[in-house]
Amino acid sequence: MATRRELLAALRAAVGEAAVVWRPEELATYEFDGTVERSVPHAVVLPATAGEVQAVVRACAGLGVPITPRGAGTGLSGGAVAAKRGVVVSTARMRRILEIDPVDRVAVVEPGVANLELSRQAARYGLFYPPDPSSQAACTIGGNVAENAGGPHCLALGVTQNFVLGLEVVTAAGEVRWLGGRSPDPFGYDLRGAFIGSEGTLGIATKVVVRLLPVPPAVVTLLAAFPTVEQACDAVSSIIARGIVPAAMEMMDRLCIEAVEARFAVGYPMDAGAVLLVEVDGLAEEVEGEAGKVRAECLERGATVVRVAASDEERALLWKGRKGAIPALGRLAPNYYIVDGVVPRSRLASVMERVGAISARSGLRIANVFHAGDGNLHPLILFDEREPGAAERVLATAAEIMRVCVEEGGTLSGEHGIGAEKREFMPWLFGAADLENMGRLRGVFGADAARFNPCKVFPGGTGCGEMGSHASAVRAAGPDAYV
Amino acid sequence: MATRRELLAALRAAVGEAAVVWRPEELATYEFDGTVERSVPHAVVLPATAGEVQAVVRACAGLGVPITPRGAGTGLSGGAVAAKRGVVVSTARMRRILEIDPVDRVAVVEPGVANLELSRQAARYGLFYPPDPSSQAACTIGGNVAENAGGPHCLALGVTQNFVLGLEVVTAAGEVRWLGGRSPDPFGYDLRGAFIGSEGTLGIATKVVVRLLPVPPAVVTLLAAFPTVEQACDAVSSIIARGIVPAAMEMMDRLCIEAVEARFAVGYPMDAGAVLLVEVDGLAEEVEGEAGKVRAECLERGATVVRVAASDEERALLWKGRKGAIPALGRLAPNYYIVDGVVPRSRLASVMERVGAISARSGLRIANVFHAGDGNLHPLILFDEREPGAAERVLATAAEIMRVCVEEGGTLSGEHGIGAEKREFMPWLFGAADLENMGRLRGVFGADAARFNPCKVFPGGTGCGEMGSHASAVRAAGPDAYV
Repeated sequence: MATRRELLAALRAAVGEAAVVWRPEELATYEFDGTVERSVPHAVVLPATAGEVQAVVRACAGLGVPITPRGAGTGLSGGAVAAKRGVVVSTARMRRILEIDPVDRVAVVEPGVANLELSRQAARYGLFYPPDPSSQAACTIGGNVAENAGGPHCLALGVTQNFVLGLEVVTAAGEVRWLGGRSPDPFGYDLRGAFIGSEGTLGIATKVVVRLLPVPPAVVTLLAAFPTVEQACDAVSSIIARGIVPAAMEMMDRLCIEAVEARFAVGYPMDAGAVLLVEVDGLAEEVEGEAGKVRAECLERGATVVRVAASDEERALLWKGRKGAIPALGRLAPNYYIVDGVVPRSRLASVMERVGAISARSGLRIANVFHAGDGNLHPLILFDEREPGAAERVLATAAEIMRVCVEEGGTLSGEHGIGAEKREFMPWLFGAADLENMGRLRGVFGADAARFNPCKVFPGGTGCGEMGSHASAVRAAGPDAYV
Repeated sequence: MATRRELLAALRAAVGEAAVVWRPEELATYEFDGTVERSVPHAVVLPATAGEVQAVVRACAGLGVPITPRGAGTGLSGGAVAAKRGVVVSTARMRRILEIDPVDRVAVVEPGVANLELSRQAARYGLFYPPDPSSQAACTIGGNVAENAGGPHCLALGVTQNFVLGLEVVTAAGEVRWLGGRSPDPFGYDLRGAFIGSEGTLGIATKVVVRLLPVPPAVVTLLAAFPTVEQACDAVSSIIARGIVPAAMEMMDRLCIEAVEARFAVGYPMDAGAVLLVEVDGLAEEVEGEAGKVRAECLERGATVVRVAASDEERALLWKGRKGAIPALGRLAPNYYIVDGVVPRSRLASVMERVGAISARSGLRIANVFHAGDGNLHPLILFDEREPGAAERVLATAAEIMRVCVEEGGTLSGEHGIGAEKREFMPWLFGAADLENMGRLRGVFGADAARFNPCKVFPGGTGCGEMGSHASAVRAAGPDAYV
């Protein structure tokens, strides 16, 4: 147990005075991520190199202080919240794109590079980085690695796991290691694969080698409006059943449509029960044919309107509605909470119906915007945290929805991770022995579960029940208080 | 240390008398895989269920006897050879396809199911399993998981890692565990990913959940003949650079063309220095256009002939040459040895030239047949094992080729694994600390490196220098000899 003074001295030695954040008013920025969990760290460091990350990890280990890695803080499961306080390691200063190789179609980036920035830079070579979370303008490649992030365009192309070839990491034990490399064919034990999606509990990536793909020469985006969510779900299944794999297939329900129209007026039909956005891409010859088939399938399944974006502007507008759906929904209530679950595509309609029933019973409004092609739901619960007990009611409702996903043969997370919020649900799908087996992976990276991003992914843990879920409660600890 | 009698008694108790192979003449079948390493196990067991696999693993652990898992024995790195003798666990009796779900496009199979058999059964639903090693008629899904197998059609679609969603495994510690599941989005630590490609050193898969894809409605196969391998390599790079990602792009050099023509007379141009087989698939509208572009690119890069298969029969014939290339080459000499390396696509031409120089210097004929689109080389060294020192010379030449791959920025294995044969090269790419870090993964599965598929993947190990590389040397051990 170190004093705060000792901790700050050690951190300054590791990264320099200017890269240590310690004033309570500045720390408040780091107390939350994209969800309801909150906890103020004792300090935040902003290392600029792998060597500095290593020095921080070692200093904290020496002092017995918990560490929590952080990208842009856009995560939706509390993964970047310092559950047991201690030190937050932000990658915000490690945002160089070190290399883009257009021949081998590989880029090497630092973890703090924003997802969209990578695709922007790659566009000079006609390439892009496929995983595209809705937060892609802000979220970082390092955070994407931690969460094995997806996005609307992962339907055809796959998630982060499929696009990261290699990683330089500082392990929780404070060693610098390469996992994988530049080759598309891993050999030896694939620790790269095990690290991706480990939610910052095994180490901190300091370089990421990613695969890029050529920007498709032609893209067609269709909007199909349906009277009910159920019909839209049926259309999704039958499009896939016809052998078409669209680049993206996104659904929004009525509440979501209303919110988007109120905010952006993108032209979604206001009388629809559900809107489906379908994108097909590839060569010009092919996309016309595919789009025609998607259109026919939607009409056959009851679509009342099918509109094809006639221009790049119109296409951008349709997507603006989808990508801005969550901020738009955010205007309907003071707070919202996003649930992330996956169900087999064949169960989508049934699960949506059950989510509707949960909404009715709980009295909480729930909007739905989701990656329909993947069966990856994102029910969004609207609430007002100032109402007494509201956050607790929301978490209980979210748990109920997760339970439905599991009952219908699905899982606990599509792309947002388990984090702090869903770890107590892990036993629904894994036995104690399976969890123990999984947890042993920490030993490979020398990760002490009590200290390296504690209280994440796995249930239990000493002192893990202390995060707040309401307004900030920065403690005015003096400079010599124990941390 | 157990006696042979004790071992056989324990195995019979685990799987029943009929499923234990112990007679020397029967054991000889299991002394080799697709490479030159040889070692006769003390016994082979053929369990039929996960419970039986578990009983065998536990029995061997109790007696301190090494275990080596085995699929069809088609591997090309010695992975299924019982380096320290002991017990071979064959999955040959676990070959049921348990489920094919055409809506969610998932199949659940036992590990002994042959790769091609799965695609055949899935074809009833218009689906197929993409990874297609050349040995696909024989090799098993369990073996594919162990080696993270690829194949010609993995260029566009990815290797085994991308198609296995979940695994039931008996760990080396003798526990039955699920890794991953049916969902395309893994959550929690991704031990599934870490197990795939671990070459049978961590446990034995007893059920495999795989993703299936729809059979593409249209396929065009082109053959392009070039005066030189270098020109063909250039064509590969420029096809990719144009943004086309063919379903497959395979190259054969002159020696390979001669062998194929002598054996199958498929119509490859005999005067060519290299033949490139390119396949594009998708919707009918699209493949015509793509094929036209591939054709134009090949002609521009110096192709003397570009031929498009006019019928399914002609297409099958062109592939027959490629898929039969290795058996055809096998007729040119009593023995052959296949090297498996990967280089960046941009270095292909240079590496091929260096392989040619190695062939000239060593006096060993080397044919080349490879996945050009991936930069995955398969130089095939022809030799006669009856010549004194031949096998050693071949292994030294293979090592020289591997060294070139690494020097040119490549890696040690594309799809055949490290196995017994390349483990001493691992330090070329990994430091001692990296290897140690990687090796710690064994702890997760309770795998004792000295006992669970010993002498594979990692360099060193006590008693690992004893495999023969020549004719069988079945030892006539009496029933009570120590094993």
